Amino acid sequence: MRRVLHGNLVYAPALGALETAEHAYLVTENGIVTGQFSALPERFLDDPIDDFHDALILPAFTDLHLHAPQYPMLGMGMDLPLLDWLERYTFRTEARFADPDYARAVYRTLANALIRNGTTRVSMFSSLHTDATLILMEELERAGISGLVGKVSMDRNSPAYYTESTEESKRETLRWLKACERFTRVRPILTPRFTPSCSDRLMRWLGDLAKESDLPVQSHLSENRSEIAWVKELAPDCERYWETYAKAGLWKPGTLMAHCVYSDAIERKAMRDYGVTAVHCADSNINIASGIAPVRVLLEEGTMVALGSDIAGGAQLNMLEVMQMTIRASKIKRIETDWQTPFLTVAEAFYLGTTAGAAYFGHAPGFPIGKRLHAVVIDDRAWGDIDRLTIAERFERAVYLAKEPDIIAVYADGVRRK
Amino acid sequence: MRRVLHGNLVYAPALGALETAEHAYLVTENGIVTGQFSALPERFLDDPIDDFHDALILPAFTDLHLHAPQYPMLGMGMDLPLLDWLERYTFRTEARFADPDYARAVYRTLANALIRNGTTRVSMFSSLHTDATLILMEELERAGISGLVGKVSMDRNSPAYYTESTEESKRETLRWLKACERFTRVRPILTPRFTPSCSDRLMRWLGDLAKESDLPVQSHLSENRSEIAWVKELAPDCERYWETYAKAGLWKPGTLMAHCVYSDAIERKAMRDYGVTAVHCADSNINIASGIAPVRVLLEEGTMVALGSDIAGGAQLNMLEVMQMTIRASKIKRIETDWQTPFLTVAEAFYLGTTAGAAYFGHAPGFPIGKRLHAVVIDDRAWGDIDRLTIAERFERAVYLAKEPDIIAVYADGVRRK
Repeated sequence: MRRVLHGNLVYAPALGALETAEHAYLVTENGIVTGQFSALPERFLDDPIDDFHDALILPAFTDLHLHAPQYPMLGMGMDLPLLDWLERYTFRTEARFADPDYARAVYRTLANALIRNGTTRVSMFSSLHTDATLILMEELERAGISGLVGKVSMDRNSPAYYTESTEESKRETLRWLKACERFTRVRPILTPRFTPSCSDRLMRWLGDLAKESDLPVQSHLSENRSEIAWVKELAPDCERYWETYAKAGLWKPGTLMAHCVYSDAIERKAMRDYGVTAVHCADSNINIASGIAPVRVLLEEGTMVALGSDIAGGAQLNMLEVMQMTIRASKIKRIETDWQTPFLTVAEAFYLGTTAGAAYFGHAPGFPIGKRLHAVVIDDRAWGDIDRLTIAERFERAVYLAKEPDIIAVYADGVRRK
Repeated sequence: MRRVLHGNLVYAPALGALETAEHAYLVTENGIVTGQFSALPERFLDDPIDDFHDALILPAFTDLHLHAPQYPMLGMGMDLPLLDWLERYTFRTEARFADPDYARAVYRTLANALIRNGTTRVSMFSSLHTDATLILMEELERAGISGLVGKVSMDRNSPAYYTESTEESKRETLRWLKACERFTRVRPILTPRFTPSCSDRLMRWLGDLAKESDLPVQSHLSENRSEIAWVKELAPDCERYWETYAKAGLWKPGTLMAHCVYSDAIERKAMRDYGVTAVHCADSNINIASGIAPVRVLLEEGTMVALGSDIAGGAQLNMLEVMQMTIRASKIKRIETDWQTPFLTVAEAFYLGTTAGAAYFGHAPGFPIGKRLHAVVIDDRAWGDIDRLTIAERFERAVYLAKEPDIIAVYADGVRRK
């Protein structure tokens, strides 16, 4: 089954670079990209075409840090200090996912919302519930989303109504992993919530499991100052936060660490040396007044950085809005550093929200040949001046202006889903 | 002609306060609010009703600083330094409004977009063109928007293709004011672009005119450091930026000054003492990396503060997004000041974007009796949990999540326009 797409292609081949191909063609076979052409070769002229005419075709978005069970509290409790926010909203909301019917309804809505907004690859935190986590994975698969989902491990410093014993956590993790075998697009990722809510014993067990079963790992790192002080109290043997993961065997290539706002030179070097990816969550870091992560420094040092919406600390599911907020956060970092740090350009934020995330999943930039198509199509005609502007200018405007209805088509893992 | 509205009312009676009235009724007569009731009195039972059931009814939004002729470049050139941005985009875009047909098309689109997004009262910069300015005023009136519009005065330090001589500026200003007499909802406001682009002679003439004709004034103040240094060069006799306006007679009650990012204690005192309103434009100040205005300090000192979208320095027309960005900017100010400055709560940002702006136009908070109704209705059912949440929680969520399509009705100056 061949299918041709036509439109203006835009992607980020490298950090800071932008590649555009005006009125170009993508050819797919069974969802796999087989060619990109500036004029359609004669042999494809009779194939069915999705002709998007003058619209912009971009790689679909990647969201490498978000909390699925916090979706019902999106945009709420933003005025509360972190601990009150966790108590009054987060834990209570996550606890509702003990109910499989509730989980089914919310996760179906979330999966559909992700697709409608052009996010096709994710790394997600679920709740601690095995069944709800499996439902989340089912709903993501059904919607066409690929990536990683983690049942959260949390056996200490959690409210009585939303915690698990160490033994229970181990048992449920194994039950969950066994049940994951049936999924094809969505794979499990080990997910200690963060050091304060995961005992040393459980962390070490997860580290051993990660090694034996060759499973990836995600967690939180150096998000805010009181959290860091708490970790220091809980793990006096560790000089820095990252060591609490490292000593358990959880610090390894492919590990995703959200935030890294206060990671100093040594912690950043450990990220780079071990191949750990920093997931920058600009909106969340601002909403919770955590601070602004040193993204430019991380990138200059050669650490891998991708973007996360971090709902519901972040209030925006749409990754174009997340890219915008990434740019804004970098401009604040510029102000904070007496205008000495270059901000992230539109092309750079776009790279982090597409190419960098795709790279985490082993995909080359753009619309790589031999891989299933991940793409979004944006119709920007309503904003005018289509004929006066370059494709690059129109792309930049789309990053700032496109809302969900302007994303007129989404291809996820080779299949058109919108 | 009586008309009843039913829904959940939410408004900000004072900075930081939030008033909610569940399932309440507003009664209007010829667009003027005549009563607010928790149960509908029998005498109104037969009147036509706009029943919004469980939806949220808020005062409509006020936008006290935006550049109408920059609407076509919304979201563009955001990576450029300020001067390049002005040269490559701003001045060229504004210059296009010499063409009345172009002005008509863009301003009709803009006026409709404002209404669709719930903004019903504005103070706007036009371009330097008299005819386009009159077209803008016509289109705002037609759409039902009220407020102030200023033909921009700029007779120095402007590109040759987009400037006016001092004499031309005076003559055109008088022609414009004469033609304004026909408008009822939209009134003129004198608008020296900012000190660098307005000669002393023209400024003084505008100051005299403001006094003689009792006209309000708007301009820019202390937006960024290089601008302030430039003003200092141009006006060595002035210790601070505000004095360049004061010495021309433009610093007076009702004067609107956009930005005030770097206004120090003395400049802030001058604002408070003279009854000048600071218009905070958080998104623009971040996008252009100007800095973060000291809004909390201004408020604590008793200076009037309202919000502006400042398109196209700001990339968001929707005032709910502007309120969100106001909150985010205040959280950054909190981080910047070692967590010593309280951030702006949702209720406070809402106050600035509704009550404070309405106060500038002489309206009491909420849905004041005896005044024409300005209101927006938000349908938040799609986000769930309507029955579990308080009205205040739902309101807070709406500020973060509501997009244009969620605003299901807009009343502007007494008339339903959406």
